This record gives sequence, C-alpha cells and structure tokens, in this order.
Amino acid sequence: MTAASSSVTFTGVIPPVATPLLPDGTIDHVSLERLVERLIAEGVSGLFALGSTGETAYFTDDQRVELLTTIVRVNAGRVPIIAGAIELTAPRIIETARRLVAAGAQAIVTTAPLYTLNSAAEVADHFRAIAAAIDVPLWAYDVPVRVHSKLGIDLLVRLGAEGVIHGVKDSSGDDVSFRRLIAANDAAGRPLQLLTGHEVVVDAMALAGADGVVPGFANVEAAGYVRLWDATQRGDWTEARTEQERINRAFDIVFAPQGLSGDATGVGAFKAAMHARGIIDHATMADTVQSLDADTVTRIRQILSEQGMLPVAVS
Amino acid sequence: MTAASSSVTFTGVIPPVATPLLPDGTIDHVSLERLVERLIAEGVSGLFALGSTGETAYFTDDQRVELLTTIVRVNAGRVPIIAGAIELTAPRIIETARRLVAAGAQAIVTTAPLYTLNSAAEVADHFRAIAAAIDVPLWAYDVPVRVHSKLGIDLLVRLGAEGVIHGVKDSSGDDVSFRRLIAANDAAGRPLQLLTGHEVVVDAMALAGADGVVPGFANVEAAGYVRLWDATQRGDWTEARTEQERINRAFDIVFAPQGLSGDATGVGAFKAAMHARGIIDHATMADTVQSLDADTVTRIRQILSEQGMLPVAVS
Amino acid sequence: MTAASSSVTFTGVIPPVATPLLPDGTIDHVSLERLVERLIAEGVSGLFALGSTGETAYFTDDQRVELLTTIVRVNAGRVPIIAGAIELTAPRIIETARRLVAAGAQAIVTTAPLYTLNSAAEVADHFRAIAAAIDVPLWAYDVPVRVHSKLGIDLLVRLGAEGVIHGVKDSSGDDVSFRRLIAANDAAGRPLQLLTGHEVVVDAMALAGADGVVPGFANVEAAGYVRLWDATQRGDWTEARTEQERINRAFDIVFAPQGLSGDATGVGAFKAAMHARGIIDHATMADTVQSLDADTVTRIRQILSEQGMLPVAVS
Amino acid sequence: MTAASSSVTFTGVIPPVATPLLPDGTIDHVSLERLVERLIAEGVSGLFALGSTGETAYFTDDQRVELLTTIVRVNAGRVPIIAGAIELTAPRIIETARRLVAAGAQAIVTTAPLYTLNSAAEVADHFRAIAAAIDVPLWAYDVPVRVHSKLGIDLLVRLGAEGVIHGVKDSSGDDVSFRRLIAANDAAGRPLQLLTGHEVVVDAMALAGADGVVPGFANVEAAGYVRLWDATQRGDWTEARTEQERINRAFDIVFAPQGLSGDATGVGAFKAAMHARGIIDHATMADTVQSLDADTVTRIRQILSEQGMLPVAVS
Repeated sequence: MTAASSSVTFTGVIPPVATPLLPDGTIDHVSLERLVERLIAEGVSGLFALGSTGETAYFTDDQRVELLTTIVRVNAGRVPIIAGAIELTAPRIIETARRLVAAGAQAIVTTAPLYTLNSAAEVADHFRAIAAAIDVPLWAYDVPVRVHSKLGIDLLVRLGAEGVIHGVKDSSGDDVSFRRLIAANDAAGRPLQLLTGHEVVVDAMALAGADGVVPGFANVEAAGYVRLWDATQRGDWTEARTEQERINRAFDIVFAPQGLSGDATGVGAFKAAMHARGIIDHATMADTVQSLDADTVTRIRQILSEQGMLPVAVS
Repeated sequence: MTAASSSVTFTGVIPPVATPLLPDGTIDHVSLERLVERLIAEGVSGLFALGSTGETAYFTDDQRVELLTTIVRVNAGRVPIIAGAIELTAPRIIETARRLVAAGAQAIVTTAPLYTLNSAAEVADHFRAIAAAIDVPLWAYDVPVRVHSKLGIDLLVRLGAEGVIHGVKDSSGDDVSFRRLIAANDAAGRPLQLLTGHEVVVDAMALAGADGVVPGFANVEAAGYVRLWDATQRGDWTEARTEQERINRAFDIVFAPQGLSGDATGVGAFKAAMHARGIIDHATMADTVQSLDADTVTRIRQILSEQGMLPVAVS
Repeated sequence: MTAASSSVTFTGVIPPVATPLLPDGTIDHVSLERLVERLIAEGVSGLFALGSTGETAYFTDDQRVELLTTIVRVNAGRVPIIAGAIELTAPRIIETARRLVAAGAQAIVTTAPLYTLNSAAEVADHFRAIAAAIDVPLWAYDVPVRVHSKLGIDLLVRLGAEGVIHGVKDSSGDDVSFRRLIAANDAAGRPLQLLTGHEVVVDAMALAGADGVVPGFANVEAAGYVRLWDATQRGDWTEARTEQERINRAFDIVFAPQGLSGDATGVGAFKAAMHARGIIDHATMADTVQSLDADTVTRIRQILSEQGMLPVAVS
Repeated sequence: MTAASSSVTFTGVIPPVATPLLPDGTIDHVSLERLVERLIAEGVSGLFALGSTGETAYFTDDQRVELLTTIVRVNAGRVPIIAGAIELTAPRIIETARRLVAAGAQAIVTTAPLYTLNSAAEVADHFRAIAAAIDVPLWAYDVPVRVHSKLGIDLLVRLGAEGVIHGVKDSSGDDVSFRRLIAANDAAGRPLQLLTGHEVVVDAMALAGADGVVPGFANVEAAGYVRLWDATQRGDWTEARTEQERINRAFDIVFAPQGLSGDATGVGAFKAAMHARGIIDHATMADTVQSLDADTVTRIRQILSEQGMLPVAVS
C-alpha cells in the first residue's frame, strides 16, 4: 500500500453508517446524504461504511459500491473512511475490497472466513492473502456471534507485528479477552489500533485502553458518543460514565422489539429511531428482514421522548 | 421454472464433485474430466457440483462457472446436475445461481443466510426470494456445522408444499430430526426429495426412508455406494450393511490427518486418496487451506491398500 | 467386582423407568409397582432406573434409594437392573453409586463430570476412579445436550478394553459417531455393549449394530419396542421399520407441548400419556418442573387415540 | 431468614478461597489457616468459600463442611462468609446449603440447575425453592462456561425485587449484559449487590457500577485488589487502572499451562503460585485433575519474580 494510505488512522468515534432504503428496497441517497452530513457535523472522527449495522451482507457488490460512492462524495475527505468487505473467503473478499477501494475506501475491514472450517494458521493466511492483494490498510473484525469463531489474541498481535493488519474492531462480547489484547498489543509496541463495538461500555473500555468505538447508536445520536469519548481522553471518568449512562437509557430502544431476529431488532430499532428523529425518510429494512410493528415503533418513540431526543431539528 | 426443469429428480447416489487443482491453484480440467467420467462410469445417478467437498466457498463466481462448465460438458446430459450457490444472502445467491444456471445447472442448492442473524420466518422468505428469481428447482442444504443454524422440519416441509424447494440435502448430523423430516414429508404427500450427506450410515438412512445420498468419498470410489444403494432398493439390508462397513473401513482415511482444520482434513484426505488412485494428478488444496504432510499421505495410502483400493486402473 | 455381577448384560429393550409422583411430590409407589410390572410383562430385557426420563437429577439420594428399592422389590430378579448415579464428580458419584448398589442395582451408569472443566485424560480418570470404587459394572452415559461435552470414541473403547466400563448408553444425537464407535468396538473385540437412546431410529441403529435401546416411550408402551427389536434380531428389517414408524406416530406426543422446557416437554408428555393409559395415577412432575396444560394433555390423548392406544386395560 | 443474616453484605474484594490439599488428597488445614489469615490481613472485605476456585465440585458434603468449618473458625467473625452450594437441583442444593449454614455460612450462593433442561420460569422457581428452605441470604452465581446457560437480567432483578436473591456473582463473560444488569438493578431500587468475577477488568467494571469483585488471583496476592478497589471507591481511576495492569501482568500465570483442562490450568496456576510464595505447603490438585509439569511451574515462578512477587515473607 502507499505511504499515504498506511498512515490513515481510526480512533475515537467511528460510527458504522446505516443504510437508508426507499420503500421499494433501493438505496435512499437523499437520506444517506443527510445521515453522513449529520454524523460529521456531530463530530465523529471517521466513518465505518458497510458494516453489520449497514446491513452490508444483504447487498450485492454493485449496491455496496453505490452506497460507498455516496458516502465518499458527501464526506469529501473530511474524515477517513473504512469499509467492510464481508464475504466468504479471501478470493471473494479481495474482489469486493478492490471495488470498494476504487470507490474511495481508505481502509478495508473483514472477518475470518465464513462457512469454511479453518484452523488459526489458515485464518492467518486468509488475512495475509487479502492484505497482499489490496493497497490500503486491512483491519480485522472480530464478531463471533456472526462468524462463529473468535480471533485469538496471539493471531491478531502477530498479524499486527507483520504489518498485515492495522487494527481490530472487537465485537467479541469478551471484555476479558479484549483487555488481554490491549496488553499484548502494548507489549508488542502497539502495532494495532483497537476499537470496541460494545457501545454500552465505552467508558469502561476506554479506561481499559481502547482506541475508539464503533457505535451503531451514533446513527441515532452521535454527539453523545463524541462527548463521552472526549471525556475519557481528558480523564474525566465521572463525566464519561454519566454520558454513557444517559446514552444507555436511550439505547434501550434496541430491547423494545420482541420475538424478532437479531438483525430485525438491532438495526430495526436504529432505523425506527432515525426515522422518528427525521434523520432518514423511511425505516425500510433490507429485503427478507422483518419490519417492526407499530406498537414497537411507538415504544421506541416513547423511550426517545423520555430521553429528550424527540423532536430534533435536522439539517 | 419450466415444466422440464421442475421434473429433474435427484435420488440414489449423487456425489459432490471434488475440485482438482493444479499446483498453481488454477483448475485442473484434465483431472476434472477424468473424475466426472469415472463417476458416471461407476454408476452415479447425478452430480452435485460446487458443494462443500468441492471447496466452492474458496472460489470466485468466475471460477465456479469455469468448473461447472467443464462438468456439464463432460457429463453431456447423461445424469442431472445440481449446483451449489453458497453465498451470504438471497441477493448474492441469486447472482451466483443465475450464472450457474446459465452454465448448465439443472437445479440449485443453497443454505440459510450466512453472517446475518435471522428468524425462521426470514429464512423462509430467503428461500422464497431465491426460488422466485431462478428458473430451475431450488434445494435446501442443511449443514449446521458450517451455517451455525438448523433448518426446522416445519419450515422445510412448508417450503416443499409451497413448491419453493424441491428437496433437502441433510448434513445436519441429527438422525432423529432427519427421521422426523421423512415422516413429515410423507404426511405432506412427499413434496421433497431427501438426501443424506452422512455417508457412513447410508444403509441406516435408506432404511429410515432417505431418497439418496451425497457421499464425498465417492470421489475416491463411487462403485461401492452404487452397490450399497442398489442393495437398499431391493431390500437386501444385510448386503447393504456389509457394503457400508467395507466403505467405512476405507473412509477412515478422513481420520488420518491430525491437528488440521476441518476443511484440510476431510477434503484433504479425499484428494490424497484420489491422487493415490490416479484419479487426479495433484492433491492441491484451495488457497489458504493447509496440505497434508507426507506421513499422513502414507497412512492414507496404507488404509486404501488394506482395503484393496490400490492400485487402480484409471480411465 | 464379583464374577456374578460382571456377567450382567444389558441388550435389547432396556426402558428408563419413569418416576410416578403423588400430587404432593412424594413417590407414588403404587403406580411405580404397576409400571414395573407392566414393563416386565411386555417383555423388556432389563430396567434402567434413575435416568433422565426418571427425573433422577431432581431427587435426593434418599429418594433415589426409595425409588430403586421399590423397583428392585417388584422386579424380584426377573430382569437385570442398571441405575444412574448422576452427580457432579467422581467423589459424589461414588457416594450415590454405593447406596444404589446396596439397594440392589446390578450395574451403575454415569456421565462425564458436570460443572467442572476437564480434559479427556481427566474424564478417563474420572471413570477409572468410579469403577475402582464400586463392585458392579460401570457404564458410560453420553448425553451432550445435558453434559455439554461428548465422550470420544477412543476414550470409550480404551476404557472398555481396560475393563473400566462395560457399555455405553449413547444419547449423543450423533449417528455418525455412534456408527464409528460400533466399528471401533468391533475392532477391539467388543469390550462394550452399545445401547442407543434414540428411540425413533432403533431400526436404523440396530442395522448399524446397536446392542439395544433405552426408549423413554416404553413407559407408555413397551410391547412395540419389544416387537421392533425382535424383528431386527431375526433380520426382518421391513417389519422393524413398520413397527418403528408406528411407534414414531405415537411418539409425536412429545412434540405436543409448546413453549415449555426440555424436561417439562419430554417427561411431561410421557407422564400425561401414561396417566391417560391408566399406567400411573398422577402426571405430577418433579418439583420446579412445569406441568402440561389441559389443551396439551387433550392433544396427547388425541394422538394416542389415533394410534389405537386408548383405552388400555391395565394390570 | 433472620434480620441479622439478611443484613450481611458482600462488597469490595471477596476472594474465592482456594482449597489447599495434602499430597494424599485430604484437606491441608494448616495451609488453609495460613491462607485465610493472610487474606484477612491483606484487607479483604469478605470470603467466598466453596466456589469454583475452591474446587468445590470435586468435594463431598462432608469435605465441604470440613473446609468451611476451618475457614469459619480462623475468620472468627472478622469478615462475612458466603459459601457455594453447587449441586444439580434445588433438593440437593438445599441439603448441602443447610449443612453449610449450620457450619457457619452467612449466605449461600448457587447456580441454575445442572444437567436438567429448564425454562426461565423453572429456573426462577428453583431459586425460590432454595431461598424458602434456608435462613440466610441467597445469591445467584452466573457462570455460563460451567452451567451452559445464562441467567437473564429480568430474571435476576425480579428475584431481587421479590427478596429471593440478595446479589449476583457475575462470571458470565458478558460485560454488555452486566452493564445492563447494573442499570436494571438501579432502576429497581438496587435490590441486588453485584459482584464481578472478571478479575482482569475490575477497574472497568467498578466504573460501570459493580459493587465488588471475586478475584481468584487474590489467593496469590490480595493486597493489590484491595488497593485497586479502594482507588475505584475514591474515584482515582488512573491509580485503579495502574494497579489493575500490574495485577494483570502477574495474572498471566494462568496462561502459562498449555494443553491442560480449564480446571487444571486456572486453579493449577493459582496453587503453583501460592506454593511458590509460601502460602500453601503443596500445590496438590483435587483428585482426577491433572497437575502442572515442572516447566510450567518454573514459568509461573518466573512471571511472579518479574513482578517482584517472589520471595515473600509469609505469616
């Protein structure tokens, strides 16, 4: 990769950009523009395009490029952009990643292989093959609830030391492992930047040494995470905790849906809240994912209202 | 789909065709031709292209089409061909499936979504969306060890009754569930053809009511499975069991590798045995999958030799 | 152990005896006597006391001894009795097992340790410690859905060859592994007797080489399993399958309960059916386990009626 | 329970007392006395007897009472004592718990049922049955890696509001869930005391709102955890983090063993370190659990030495 690209860093608040859709299931570029503008205006330090919150697995490569192109255009270089290339294995990830890099991604993030049955050594070669085939920094995404395997600490730090990966987005649900990863990364000279995806414990993970957070809820309100992160950076842990607890009361919207799938629930709640706040025009979900019913949407609006998050003036 | 295509059936022995590779990782069409000819010569009743044994997850769509094209050409219409379209979600599966149908696949088989977190209702819509978008019969592939969720009996039979799916390849590792699926399918008027992927219990699964088997080991020797299946169809269960037990002694090759991944082990053992028997020219694995060491290959040859399967005259 | 005890064998139909309870939760000895008499009258070849179907985990050692004492007294030596000693670890299993042997158990069956985190070597030592401390044959019970680990084939056959265990009750849900265990046991000179707990595939498992079955449904009707097993022993696989399919239609009672726990569902359905058939006086469940509602009981009676299993004249 | 007993609280540093054994496997009371004296001298605020670190699952009730009796005697009322009653189900837990209360336990902690297959409603009744049968406060222990199910937030807070349980020891490995439990407990008026078992993230969990920690490593050195906890209570998060990071470097001893079971590894490392520091006379493990080899013990001593923890003057 080029010297320029290798110097791209992702620290602080890096929201996973949600994907606004029109009722017919196509991309709602108007809402997407509004969303990206809003995220940047609220002070995020980078954008994570095409992640799980962005429903990327439900989109074709053409759609992914279409999405990323708008995000890159609206961003206009203001913050760095990392894009998810979520595919089965290295050959397919490389195909997707190259298209995303061509469309403006400054870094690529991907997981261990899906569907296949691999050893740690094979997973390492998987990341090596991808890194060798793209000319921007590669990040590893550790999300066992979706990938059904965990990336080991030794594996990650070794790949970092080799220059294969530049950072990790940790959604492993394993704070003990994350703390040990931080220590191992420190001991190795900090080759990796370490972002947590656990948006309800950002204060605690910052205390533990995280370099940033990828909060899905920032699609609903990013300013709180920016304040929270700033508090951690100046060592005001009481303020950080207070802000985190305020956010968490609003984050309860994701527990409003009952009996639906994980994807319908989490992203569904975000989209309902974004719609309620006027950030997107429709709460349409990716095709085959169920929509929230009216009662659930009402409950979500109620939670937002209790937290003083309705109404909001939108840009 | 057309009336012609909907009448394609897959019963009996339907081997998942392995993917011979040259040392540089590209497709070895010469060996693939030899393999397909041999499978048909040994009496298989259909071909399952691009399944797990075929390492399909490691190949791009271009490579998959390249593989399928050779299989279709060599087969020349002698047996029906079903092809795997293994991708993350419906939109991507449809893209792949359409290319495979254009290349000659007479049916498509796929799994529940990967990576995503879906409910049973969403999985049903996933299969409905795919079936509506392709004009050949769709089959469901139930392989929890790779997909990390199980397709329910009610779901499968309902999709069968709707005409969405025409059959199931069951690699669920759950014989109790499979027996109940057979009973539920019978009660519904048999909308589904039910193939087992459990190649060491074909006699038992045939007794239980399976319509056929997808045996990876048939890439090493198909004739035994054909004899076994024929014995079950004429009710000669003692002969079926004897043949199964003979096969199982040879199947022990897959337990020869130690300490390797699931993919390196199973497909690796098959390829080593195919190479030892002269069926393929190289035992090369898909990129990033580790190769067997020399001692393991020796042990595999020894097992084959003990079973009288070396040397063999190849076509 | 004594020469006499080591010669006890368990093959054919060995039902896990259910535990009839009075409405106050104490043991219903009158119903238990009726149940045991009936099982023997219908031709079972042994009794499995204090297994999962017997809700043994919910009873104290005093209650277990009380239960076993009645079973032993009613049996009066007509068939051999094996008893479950289900406890956390070897020291506690030995305490329980000794009391059960004193009460008349002719063999003991137990699982890998519970709650603890052990290696295969430690599990082997666990069985060795227990076998060394009791003077009747020890059996291993493989039930991963409850123990959350699987007993390996090598481990079981090695313990068999050492004389530590005399047999295995397999409720592993893994027919492929069971088939391989049969082959490995054959190759080792058959040190183990191998019983399947998968009561809906007894025909298939007998074809595969099982030595017997432990069917919970035999508490509702044992005669069918005796006929089924006899058919397998004389090689009449068509008759075996027909009987199995008849049983399976009645076994559907265990799928009648909705939304309840595994224990409430399986044992609850058996007890409801036993009560409907007049075999036990109350369908009371062990304390803390929920009871079936009236609609579910009605549905169970309907299934039994459709299968001609109501009414029944009881002894 | 009595008014006195219900007022017992467990906050701050509550170490799970390890079980020193003589080479013949019997309890080493001399070492146990030394250990308890040392823990109290280093400032712990309570003792957690008979937990996983105490290898309680490997001991009979007689041994458990023997252990607890010594702990109670040495403690002589200086700090409150909570004891684990780890058994299969409520009836057996009640038997054990009553003996432990008679021996001086001021509170009892237990898990969801083991081996059985229960619903959340049944688990709630399980805790209710136990609480009703003992006259000291009951605590819930959430340790999915051993129990193979997770205690839900709603369940715990409801049982707290009912007065059934007084606190939770969380070893769930799920920091997100723990943070939500803290919030839900706060919203309910704080019926529960919430201890974390994740001893490498105590600073972070204290920031999140934990009431205390149960650190197994305190058996090796408790003073660090006392300093750490005190720092959190006065809001000195930088000091807390520094102390946590120091502890974590020493805690690396638990990653020294390779290829052993979970129980052999964790408790084995603690015992080796305790022995190296002169706290216990023998590193003997519970019967059937494997011992560390000499190289591993050397590596553990080396880690302790690097952290300035060898030698130590023992009382």
